[in-house]
Amino acid sequence: MAASLRLRGATSGLRYWSHRQRPAAASLAAVCSRSMASKTPVGFIGLGNMGNPMAKNLMKHGYPLIIYDVFPDACKEFQEAGEQVVSSPADVAEKADRIITMLPTSINAVEAYSGTNGILKKVKKGSLLIDSSTIDPSVSKELAKEVEKMGAVFMDAPVSGGVGAARSGNLTFMVGGVEEEFAAAQELLGCMGSNVVYCGAVGTGQAAKICNNMLLAISMIGTAEAMNLGIRLGLDPKLLAKILNMSSGRCWSSDTYNPVPGVMDGVPSANNYQGGFGTTLMAKDLGLAQDSATSTKSPILLGSLAHQIYRMMCAKGYSKKDFSSVFQFLREEENF
Amino acid sequence: MAASLRLRGATSGLRYWSHRQRPAAASLAAVCSRSMASKTPVGFIGLGNMGNPMAKNLMKHGYPLIIYDVFPDACKEFQEAGEQVVSSPADVAEKADRIITMLPTSINAVEAYSGTNGILKKVKKGSLLIDSSTIDPSVSKELAKEVEKMGAVFMDAPVSGGVGAARSGNLTFMVGGVEEEFAAAQELLGCMGSNVVYCGAVGTGQAAKICNNMLLAISMIGTAEAMNLGIRLGLDPKLLAKILNMSSGRCWSSDTYNPVPGVMDGVPSANNYQGGFGTTLMAKDLGLAQDSATSTKSPILLGSLAHQIYRMMCAKGYSKKDFSSVFQFLREEENF
Amino acid sequence: MAASLRLRGATSGLRYWSHRQRPAAASLAAVCSRSMASKTPVGFIGLGNMGNPMAKNLMKHGYPLIIYDVFPDACKEFQEAGEQVVSSPADVAEKADRIITMLPTSINAVEAYSGTNGILKKVKKGSLLIDSSTIDPSVSKELAKEVEKMGAVFMDAPVSGGVGAARSGNLTFMVGGVEEEFAAAQELLGCMGSNVVYCGAVGTGQAAKICNNMLLAISMIGTAEAMNLGIRLGLDPKLLAKILNMSSGRCWSSDTYNPVPGVMDGVPSANNYQGGFGTTLMAKDLGLAQDSATSTKSPILLGSLAHQIYRMMCAKGYSKKDFSSVFQFLREEENF
Amino acid sequence: MAASLRLRGATSGLRYWSHRQRPAAASLAAVCSRSMASKTPVGFIGLGNMGNPMAKNLMKHGYPLIIYDVFPDACKEFQEAGEQVVSSPADVAEKADRIITMLPTSINAVEAYSGTNGILKKVKKGSLLIDSSTIDPSVSKELAKEVEKMGAVFMDAPVSGGVGAARSGNLTFMVGGVEEEFAAAQELLGCMGSNVVYCGAVGTGQAAKICNNMLLAISMIGTAEAMNLGIRLGLDPKLLAKILNMSSGRCWSSDTYNPVPGVMDGVPSANNYQGGFGTTLMAKDLGLAQDSATSTKSPILLGSLAHQIYRMMCAKGYSKKDFSSVFQFLREEENF
Repeated sequence: MAASLRLRGATSGLRYWSHRQRPAAASLAAVCSRSMASKTPVGFIGLGNMGNPMAKNLMKHGYPLIIYDVFPDACKEFQEAGEQVVSSPADVAEKADRIITMLPTSINAVEAYSGTNGILKKVKKGSLLIDSSTIDPSVSKELAKEVEKMGAVFMDAPVSGGVGAARSGNLTFMVGGVEEEFAAAQELLGCMGSNVVYCGAVGTGQAAKICNNMLLAISMIGTAEAMNLGIRLGLDPKLLAKILNMSSGRCWSSDTYNPVPGVMDGVPSANNYQGGFGTTLMAKDLGLAQDSATSTKSPILLGSLAHQIYRMMCAKGYSKKDFSSVFQFLREEENF
Repeated sequence: MAASLRLRGATSGLRYWSHRQRPAAASLAAVCSRSMASKTPVGFIGLGNMGNPMAKNLMKHGYPLIIYDVFPDACKEFQEAGEQVVSSPADVAEKADRIITMLPTSINAVEAYSGTNGILKKVKKGSLLIDSSTIDPSVSKELAKEVEKMGAVFMDAPVSGGVGAARSGNLTFMVGGVEEEFAAAQELLGCMGSNVVYCGAVGTGQAAKICNNMLLAISMIGTAEAMNLGIRLGLDPKLLAKILNMSSGRCWSSDTYNPVPGVMDGVPSANNYQGGFGTTLMAKDLGLAQDSATSTKSPILLGSLAHQIYRMMCAKGYSKKDFSSVFQFLREEENF
Repeated sequence: MAASLRLRGATSGLRYWSHRQRPAAASLAAVCSRSMASKTPVGFIGLGNMGNPMAKNLMKHGYPLIIYDVFPDACKEFQEAGEQVVSSPADVAEKADRIITMLPTSINAVEAYSGTNGILKKVKKGSLLIDSSTIDPSVSKELAKEVEKMGAVFMDAPVSGGVGAARSGNLTFMVGGVEEEFAAAQELLGCMGSNVVYCGAVGTGQAAKICNNMLLAISMIGTAEAMNLGIRLGLDPKLLAKILNMSSGRCWSSDTYNPVPGVMDGVPSANNYQGGFGTTLMAKDLGLAQDSATSTKSPILLGSLAHQIYRMMCAKGYSKKDFSSVFQFLREEENF
Repeated sequence: MAASLRLRGATSGLRYWSHRQRPAAASLAAVCSRSMASKTPVGFIGLGNMGNPMAKNLMKHGYPLIIYDVFPDACKEFQEAGEQVVSSPADVAEKADRIITMLPTSINAVEAYSGTNGILKKVKKGSLLIDSSTIDPSVSKELAKEVEKMGAVFMDAPVSGGVGAARSGNLTFMVGGVEEEFAAAQELLGCMGSNVVYCGAVGTGQAAKICNNMLLAISMIGTAEAMNLGIRLGLDPKLLAKILNMSSGRCWSSDTYNPVPGVMDGVPSANNYQGGFGTTLMAKDLGLAQDSATSTKSPILLGSLAHQIYRMMCAKGYSKKDFSSVFQFLREEENF
């Protein structure tokens, strides 16, 4: 593996130091080498709502980009800023030995890697391919196998945090793959996120993300049910939230992202559930959890019901609202 | 109401100062008066696992007790310590104008108040009756009405925290009832708990407790499902817990009471799910949540399923284990 | 018991023959006696949507009625037809020794029996009190105890079948109570229904009804889910229904009351879900199932979720539609 | 299409008569032609519990077989009976232009068709490939596309009915594919089943099977819950079953396959849940329903929960018991 890694840019050893491992005083030479390494172009495929600000943060850190998106319009802005736009993932792979992919579904990811003009058609040995899409961990594993056959390295690194965190460079990356390559990934991911967590073998980044989001969906619906029940039993919403947050019912959904309008400021529930993390996206992630649970034969009784609830909300006009709108979904009474 | 309150002990106005309201410098006279007030006997009905240490904490604060329990053995210890044991709730009410009840079910509470030899048979005008049992809020409201007819005051004040918290005087009390009486309740409850929270009208103490425990049950099962799924997908349990706890899946069940053996010390999962809060008790509280949801027509999809899961666990040998054993229930594979 | 029964009208032994037991040739004397018995007035309390046509069927069979309803308007029609209207359940009990009650909730039933002017205030010894309301079986048992204390007989006899079956006298009655009294109940119930089924001790009539309706709710939602999924997978609805109905998925909801518009004629789904059995009523019955399951500690995972689904439908504008509209609820996509 | 069919055996038009369409009196010539047609060998891949008796029924109807199974032992019996055993699916395709596949999972089916030595490697133009495996309908569609590219015809024809029905030739086949080919499929399938139902385009056979089995699982669990609740409320099981079966709760699981021991004879519940349709198989089919629901975004609240319940049962020692053992799972109380 060491050999193949040499092929990747001119970035020498320094790249492999994680923040924790970095020697107290790095020599000037090393720093220079690293600064030069930064100028090695990085490929970026998928410039949607998330990919766009992520790519910009790489630019801010001085990385020249090789760009591709199935929608040419998504590339314009980058072209005007002087970045190089190419016409296929294969072309990206020809020109960059570090590539980040940020795509909406498993199918898109498979196409970008294994499609007719996919990355694998022209990938160089030793390249580092980081997929930040949220997809089925078993697909990540499949992709990793194919990438490995070509002598390159694949890591899954899905993100936590929305468009806001992408813009401010505060995403959390959950990274799966060979541990020796983690620092290399961290160099790039650290430009886009404030937390880069190593999770284990390929696929575990996806697994961590899926598990977190499943628990998030469950505790959000639970918070919505508990708040709604309490209100109907005569409790003041703010007081109830305060009680929950000092008790064992406390969770991120109750203390940081409360779904009841009027309880907190600066969250989607304070703004008619605009912005935030859309119900459709939550339904998608729960679909991945469901698939993983089915393939590993793990019972997920609440996770499965949460999936169905978000599925129904999508069909009832909540698809673009923040996922905390489940409170509104449970509460609202219509008169016919 | 003011008039009736005078009837209660010799405690005058001071009793009505909550911690927040207490004047910066209380005069010596007032302190003396209060100290004398402490000597007015307090009635205590129900000396089970929780009632026993709660009553002892009242004793430590200098309150003489008038004791009753349906099981005479439960009173022995107190009798030997010099407290007065009587033979019915009515007799308690005859001798004490402040009474705390701590009983296992709605039926026991109704019996203690409205039964043939219940409190209401001999309650004095102006008495303060505090029910710390966890029961249906609609039953609390019924009891409050009957108590009010007798010219006395009823407050519901269920607790959060288990036997350990009862012993160390660190329970949380959630109090419902007339706000003017809250300080009077707080004087006694503050001897047994470190948090005494005013929740609103009669029944809202129960409502807050029920809502908290329903959310707790949901997030505990959710944590168990997410941890189990993650482990089967190849994640290390400690690492997964760490990731959840720094992400949006974070909840009390993941960061303070993690259900997976080996992740945390000092929690029931580290001790074969011994101690803690039994599955049967959680099933009982979820039954109350279910009843309240049915009577207020509030949808509780996850709460209802959580209820059924804890119901099943009770039938499958988990009734005496801590409620975090749902992880074991979901995980364990039997070979037949 | 035999002695007390003599007190009831002049109806002698004949009344106790069930259809199965009736002797091949009844003597003329017996027939005359029975015909006279028919003229003994029967009390009827609760003349709503169901009670109204039920009472009329008793009239058609020659029974004079003693009528009471909390809404005087509900009695007008009967008064004009010459029946006697009185001003309380107690007055009904004074004038009739066989009474049928048909009320919407447990609370109404308790009021009619045990209220200030309830039946029990003036009930005669040996009276037969039949409650056809659908209520909690534990309430039925309570009422039976109180009735028994007065030397009278209580039976629970909830109905299956809607307003149409009530009009045509084709209801099914599920009867709980002392077996010796069943034939006496059957004499009256047989005028209003085509099936009168003895279920066992008091409360089992309610139990049978509740169990049936819970299973009905589950299989209706299941049918709606399966039909919707099949349609989305490309199957023709009529063909899918046909396949289910010849296979192991067959159920009353698929073969007799299919919820998909266009599959069957003469059912609510063919008429925009008008008529039939309202979603609110199903939610109420599922609430009773939930209560019974909680008190008997029986796990009802699907029953409980079905309850929550009907609860949500009530909040989303489906309360007055037939309960088969769950297909529409699951299917409909709103565009916002 | 007519042209391609000519390529297949010498069976001329007669093959296309369904049982319903067959002329009242077939001429001797036609019968001879058909008899000759019967001698065209039929390929059979997958000779497990189901495939074995199905293949034998084809033999009984005079079809010589070309046999393949990944486990050579499974073929012995057929070899001894004089049938031809080959060493790969490709070899089957080389020697037979009508092939039936009966495999346990989507993965096995994909391997048999598209694998290194799969059918598609040597399939002849105009061949009829019938897959009786129960797999994801989207996989059936994929296979159909690949088969079509080779100029052959693919139909999905999953079965309903267990090993008993396979032995007695009483399976039900649900067939998806080009309608013109249905009669050709029916000729073979009619030898193994008493019902051969045309469902529509490729994949709809699977869809029908999946929808039926999902509804079956739901109504079975519902029946178990309702019977258990009724029994706990004091009803006699046989009487309750009788009441349900004459009421709107009636379903195949209550009237034909009742899960409560003692209610019916000749069903798995009468024999400690031996035989029948295993819990593992039901969990597998529910996994397919879940996948289909996720990909078509159809809400299946009860179906999804049923899936999780069967998943749990598999982990709790019920995997080999009949799926009606859910009654036992819900009911049994363990004492620890």
